[in-house]
Amino acid sequence: MDHLTLHEDPRSGNCYKIVLTAALLGLPLERRQYDIMQGDTRTAEFLREVNANGRIPVLQIGKRFLPESNAACWYLAEGTRLVPTDRFDRADMLRWMFFEQYNHEPNIATLRFWLMFVGEKNLSSFQRDQIMAKRASGEAALAIMNDHLATRDWFVGTSVSLADIALYAYTHVSEAGGFRLHDYPAVCRWLDRMAGLKGYVPMS
Amino acid sequence: MDHLTLHEDPRSGNCYKIVLTAALLGLPLERRQYDIMQGDTRTAEFLREVNANGRIPVLQIGKRFLPESNAACWYLAEGTRLVPTDRFDRADMLRWMFFEQYNHEPNIATLRFWLMFVGEKNLSSFQRDQIMAKRASGEAALAIMNDHLATRDWFVGTSVSLADIALYAYTHVSEAGGFRLHDYPAVCRWLDRMAGLKGYVPMS
Repeated sequence: MDHLTLHEDPRSGNCYKIVLTAALLGLPLERRQYDIMQGDTRTAEFLREVNANGRIPVLQIGKRFLPESNAACWYLAEGTRLVPTDRFDRADMLRWMFFEQYNHEPNIATLRFWLMFVGEKNLSSFQRDQIMAKRASGEAALAIMNDHLATRDWFVGTSVSLADIALYAYTHVSEAGGFRLHDYPAVCRWLDRMAGLKGYVPMS
Repeated sequence: MDHLTLHEDPRSGNCYKIVLTAALLGLPLERRQYDIMQGDTRTAEFLREVNANGRIPVLQIGKRFLPESNAACWYLAEGTRLVPTDRFDRADMLRWMFFEQYNHEPNIATLRFWLMFVGEKNLSSFQRDQIMAKRASGEAALAIMNDHLATRDWFVGTSVSLADIALYAYTHVSEAGGFRLHDYPAVCRWLDRMAGLKGYVPMS
């Protein structure tokens, strides 16, 4: 595989997904850090060279750039034990990864970002007005995860896959956004299983 | 392949992605219709049998259910000409599909739904307050697409892939949400290429 460089802000759970995937697979990953609070990913150079969408993470593979955390995880893990060999299971893994980006991250990650990094007193009234809706949608996502995990150890099949990694990243730090993980006991047991994986690395 | 049934509301672009993928591949697809405006996908039976997340589309494959439009397209198209054979390109296709669900659909599809189906006068003040932000984010997504397509015919590689199908679904009907497609000439030329594909079917 070509040299891998992760363009990241280490506080981002989306970046951590890629770090954790690489760690579980034993892949070396150079890490180049940006401060999203300082606008490091909105400079003309970043938009031109790294990602026209102005976002991290971006996985650089040799001289090519791959934005979107879950696509980067897919690139690293395709053909490994982190992607199911069964066709339905593979699509079902992607199903949970799309669920994560649509139903989970915009609510759970955003509240953590607003409350922990921006600070509630610095929010605009437009942001503040969205807190309750994001709270409810985030709780709904956690409830779906908890129901699913009540009868199984991993999101898809019988072993860890990218679906677990994608959903783990912001779930395990969701209390920073005001969620109460103890309301979701099956999720808590799954978080413990994740942290016990061989090769696991914590979020920095 | 097992018998395929699409649980859908035909007004939904997310459902149309699956219809178009199946049509381009010549796969037979039984279609079972629900009216999301009447709460058909929030009944106890639907939540128990089809999708605990209360959303369509769901692709039923034999007796198994696969939610999330882009995951369903993946299931149908894996191993076909709609998924690139090159590893980077395959991940890059997923990159645009995640972009679609994160940056495009929540803005462009939601404004169409609110303005065309709910009706502006029936929106809550909470919804109305979000129109300008969704408009700006939707325009930003269209601008990224237009820049990308300025120098190439398809989103990834040199032929149509699921990235094009995912982004086509809500882009080609975005004027119903108040977007002006003529502001994005490269997007318009790409929409024409899509509609000219062999096996293409329009949205019902």
